[in-house]
Amino acid sequence: MFDRVALVGIGLIGSSLAHVIRREGLAGTIVVSTRSAATLERAAELDLGDVYEGDPAKAVENADLVIVSVPVGASGAVARAIAPALKAGAIVTDVGSTKGSVVSQMAPELPSSVHFIPGHPIAGTERSGPDAGFADLFDGRWCILTPLPDTDPDALARLSGFWEACGSKVDVMDPAHHDMVLAIVSHLPHIIAYNIVGTADDLEAVTKSEVIKYSASGFRDFTRLAASDPTMWRDVCLHNREAILEMLARFSEDLSALQRAIRWGDGDKLFDLFTHTRAVRRSIIEAGQDIDVPDFGRHVVAHPPRDAREPEKSGSS
Amino acid sequence: MFDRVALVGIGLIGSSLAHVIRREGLAGTIVVSTRSAATLERAAELDLGDVYEGDPAKAVENADLVIVSVPVGASGAVARAIAPALKAGAIVTDVGSTKGSVVSQMAPELPSSVHFIPGHPIAGTERSGPDAGFADLFDGRWCILTPLPDTDPDALARLSGFWEACGSKVDVMDPAHHDMVLAIVSHLPHIIAYNIVGTADDLEAVTKSEVIKYSASGFRDFTRLAASDPTMWRDVCLHNREAILEMLARFSEDLSALQRAIRWGDGDKLFDLFTHTRAVRRSIIEAGQDIDVPDFGRHVVAHPPRDAREPEKSGSS
Repeated sequence: MFDRVALVGIGLIGSSLAHVIRREGLAGTIVVSTRSAATLERAAELDLGDVYEGDPAKAVENADLVIVSVPVGASGAVARAIAPALKAGAIVTDVGSTKGSVVSQMAPELPSSVHFIPGHPIAGTERSGPDAGFADLFDGRWCILTPLPDTDPDALARLSGFWEACGSKVDVMDPAHHDMVLAIVSHLPHIIAYNIVGTADDLEAVTKSEVIKYSASGFRDFTRLAASDPTMWRDVCLHNREAILEMLARFSEDLSALQRAIRWGDGDKLFDLFTHTRAVRRSIIEAGQDIDVPDFGRHVVAHPPRDAREPEKSGSS
Repeated sequence: MFDRVALVGIGLIGSSLAHVIRREGLAGTIVVSTRSAATLERAAELDLGDVYEGDPAKAVENADLVIVSVPVGASGAVARAIAPALKAGAIVTDVGSTKGSVVSQMAPELPSSVHFIPGHPIAGTERSGPDAGFADLFDGRWCILTPLPDTDPDALARLSGFWEACGSKVDVMDPAHHDMVLAIVSHLPHIIAYNIVGTADDLEAVTKSEVIKYSASGFRDFTRLAASDPTMWRDVCLHNREAILEMLARFSEDLSALQRAIRWGDGDKLFDLFTHTRAVRRSIIEAGQDIDVPDFGRHVVAHPPRDAREPEKSGSS
């Protein structure tokens, strides 16, 4: 599909791309680049690419597709570093969680001879680094592309085809709408998760040990998002500020109303909300965006079906 | 372990108890009782017990152990209904998520000839009803017992032994402390999850379809808790009000500070919080209270290891 793909940044997303590009044969040569020498060495040990290059400018030379996978706060610096070395006609894209800020950082730096098409695959786990990647990460997940008004349709089609070959479904929207949508579906959930984990960790009436021991009653679900990469999420908060503050304000308004219903014992109001939200999960499962197994499948992983384990303790089951 | 165990209520917890009691041989006879005729019939179809009884008073006759597994708002009515039929010396316990309220509802109704020991297994999934139960639910999870000042130590030891035989580890604490601990580890997470799903569903700038499609970026994690049983959670909110309001106030204070850090671009403060919370998840995994697999194991369930599937598309992986 491409002769030479340069992956600038080799964390969870970059390394997952390396795996799927290799598996699906989407590139003649995969160039891996990251500024950390230790990470680059680790990427080589993991055999993620064909060429390893510490200097991003060298990495993008002659590449037909350049995928920048770095915390969004570093997008501008990367664009500046690679700009002089880019091949005319190359497609340059990114995978950042904010798009308005990435456009304003990268677009002014890049030469008009390349096709700059910002993107964001809606996929991830709480792990980070080159060891965290796996080829199935994008399977069935959406990838949002936010082309600029003058984007070449052929380049857009090529990049869409690439993401589809990685297993994704592709949507196109403008950067501002992307940032509003992601503020509610991704940024607010992460911020709330970080916050509740912080609140629980700061209590004096309940010990940290109690929080840990009894976490299976709900709390542990939040700790997964709150274990996400701190640099990435600091940058998201700083680079999608307006949309995040808007969503936080709405969340807090709704929480005040819910708090009032609890204080005044308004059981009907609580029951209505709690019934309503159940349908949302059903829709997500029907849309193939979560698995139809209780507890996210944890119990399946922790307790494989009996016939795959040791004999039963008693005769019946 | 017991000649006759009566399960009053046969939802997720009641039916999981039925499975594990049967598997481990903990009762000579399992009596299943629920006031809904349809649910009782379903329980019989699932072969959850030995005897099925719509009338809770009949169900508890001659039982050595009575386990009440109903929404906490129904505890008082159940206690009133079974009180006259209880065998002297029987142990009566419950599995409710609040303990102060259950004690104040049930203790005055029960005869002094029985051992009333409130309890709460810290385990569950988002599913409810008799089909939702499974024998492994309590494996490695904690069960909190909140005995009253005059509780007989032998009865407490028998009930502890029962929960250990179900796979649980047992802790003992007073009801008020239980309610404070659960407010932060369970009640607040559920309320926050219900709230954020409600907020997302009410937006006009982002469509419901967009929320569903892009939910894998974080939001879907919250929808699991927000799909929990509405009656159960309405009752929890109404019956642990003071502790929940206290935790909500702390959460909101912390969220205001976080919001301020976002507004003013205080990246160091954000980075500190986001780093700190990562350690909490590590502790939960080390304590065996969540699985050490990214994404709660979803990807493992959705994409089993390659050697268990069809042959690979390309030669390398």
